[in-house]
Amino acid sequence: MNIDEIRAADKRLEGHVRRTPLLNSPALDKIAGKRVFLKAENLQHTGSFKFRGGWAAISALPKDTKGVLAYSSGNHAQGVANAAQHFGLPAVIIMPSDAPLTKINNTKALGAEVIVYSRESEDRDQIGAQIAAQRKLTLIKPFDNADVIAGQGTCGLEIAAQAKEAGIDEADVLVCCGGGGFVSGIALALEADAPKMRVRPVEPVGFDDVIRSLAAGKRLSNTSTTGSLCDAIISPCPGEMTFPIMSRLLHSGITVSDETCLRTMALAFTHLKVVLEPGGAIALAAALFHNKGLGDTIIATASGGNVDAPMFARALETLD
Amino acid sequence: MNIDEIRAADKRLEGHVRRTPLLNSPALDKIAGKRVFLKAENLQHTGSFKFRGGWAAISALPKDTKGVLAYSSGNHAQGVANAAQHFGLPAVIIMPSDAPLTKINNTKALGAEVIVYSRESEDRDQIGAQIAAQRKLTLIKPFDNADVIAGQGTCGLEIAAQAKEAGIDEADVLVCCGGGGFVSGIALALEADAPKMRVRPVEPVGFDDVIRSLAAGKRLSNTSTTGSLCDAIISPCPGEMTFPIMSRLLHSGITVSDETCLRTMALAFTHLKVVLEPGGAIALAAALFHNKGLGDTIIATASGGNVDAPMFARALETLD
Repeated sequence: MNIDEIRAADKRLEGHVRRTPLLNSPALDKIAGKRVFLKAENLQHTGSFKFRGGWAAISALPKDTKGVLAYSSGNHAQGVANAAQHFGLPAVIIMPSDAPLTKINNTKALGAEVIVYSRESEDRDQIGAQIAAQRKLTLIKPFDNADVIAGQGTCGLEIAAQAKEAGIDEADVLVCCGGGGFVSGIALALEADAPKMRVRPVEPVGFDDVIRSLAAGKRLSNTSTTGSLCDAIISPCPGEMTFPIMSRLLHSGITVSDETCLRTMALAFTHLKVVLEPGGAIALAAALFHNKGLGDTIIATASGGNVDAPMFARALETLD
Repeated sequence: MNIDEIRAADKRLEGHVRRTPLLNSPALDKIAGKRVFLKAENLQHTGSFKFRGGWAAISALPKDTKGVLAYSSGNHAQGVANAAQHFGLPAVIIMPSDAPLTKINNTKALGAEVIVYSRESEDRDQIGAQIAAQRKLTLIKPFDNADVIAGQGTCGLEIAAQAKEAGIDEADVLVCCGGGGFVSGIALALEADAPKMRVRPVEPVGFDDVIRSLAAGKRLSNTSTTGSLCDAIISPCPGEMTFPIMSRLLHSGITVSDETCLRTMALAFTHLKVVLEPGGAIALAAALFHNKGLGDTIIATASGGNVDAPMFARALETLD
């Protein structure tokens, strides 16, 4: 993986991807005691950065591709379904039974066939591989796919350009982290275009497989993949392709509780007027409430905004 | 008023204003049966387009200005308070007692002194004039001020540029309308930069003073200024300065009920991941649910997102 693959993905995405804004607010700066910017990928098409990876991967497939298959709690699902629809390919998406209804409905609305599995008792990789073989579908993995990582990296190119426009050349860049596709792509892009940035993964307390793996120097698993509100960023362990990239480029990470994510969703509602899902708020939460030892300027990514109304109402209840 | 004043305001705003995105979603297009874009001024600094007018007006004041005064239900208040703070001027804001708490708190947080009055029994113009005289403050009217209209017009310059980038040269541009500052500024900008656009005011049912005035050819008043959820866009009657501009440039308007605004807030939450206040959702509501007779492409402005959590939760309850 190198920067050329990200620039090639950027060309394929041109005219289709939305250049999401870098948002900020004096009230949030005051809470953090530092300058905080939010890269609002929740405003991306399909409501998350996964649009980028889905498009980058599907636009690079050979012409004789019969269809695609993906497993996802919902954001990768929508990214893949959206791109498949655009390129005229059938899409089958394997989703966990506890995925937010918003994500399941939106994936279906994008023309995909959705198959539901149990996160606790079934292995999504096995189910996916079996159906892919039966129907001759191409599996689009959520992070262990070079084109997907390159697509997510295009967000890093934008961060570098927007930071430059705002006069920022040095900052801590906090990235919501599941399997590591987003943070790997961003780290590769910033290595090339904004080398003074320090990229750090942010994970839910108790689901910090990437942070523990980076400390141990080997891939470690989470003990559970259920029990967090941050459904979008819970994966069993760091990816095979993403782990070496993360090992080489990432600075130390930060963990955040579900409660702090909910409170941050409410603050983003009040001060930035955007809708974040719990996992999508985790990097901003770290910027606001766990920023000791970081520099004066923080850029936090908002990975997605696909949250059901009852969960959002619950977040709003954390306001004084 | 002419386009040169808008371009001059645009220069003064450069580097300070946020170029807000033009958002869209296949799900909303399906509801409307047309292509719908939202100019997301709720993502502007201070959570509304009023940042533009406040900045444009205060940046044009003479150097010996002692301070500023404004009357506003909250969005103009924050725009003025923010610019006054930046330029080091004291600000007094006269706000109605039924203004959303979010707006009152945010205005205070921007360093302004807030004075509350009763919308039903007191005359805000009279109160404002009196305090301005006593303290030698310069009154920044919310719409009957050429610099304010020019500032709001900078949003129209962006709409013209963004529509061009998206390949759109003809559309109905629906604008949330109170006293008419926003719609007048946008109409002047589009007359110059995108003359095939049809600009239309959108008002709450029962508070359609602008639409009735345009039909009658003279300024008519609302019978009440309370009783709508759309607090931000209720004003007694069209402005003296804005009415001739609106008469010359606007196409016929649309009225929308409070219920439809709430439902639209929920749809913007689900499909665009943005927070709209009731009045801020009214143009999008018209685009989705009252678009008969309009062309194939609609650009709706989102004027603001300063809404209290309980009202937003009420909007979310309209989802199926």
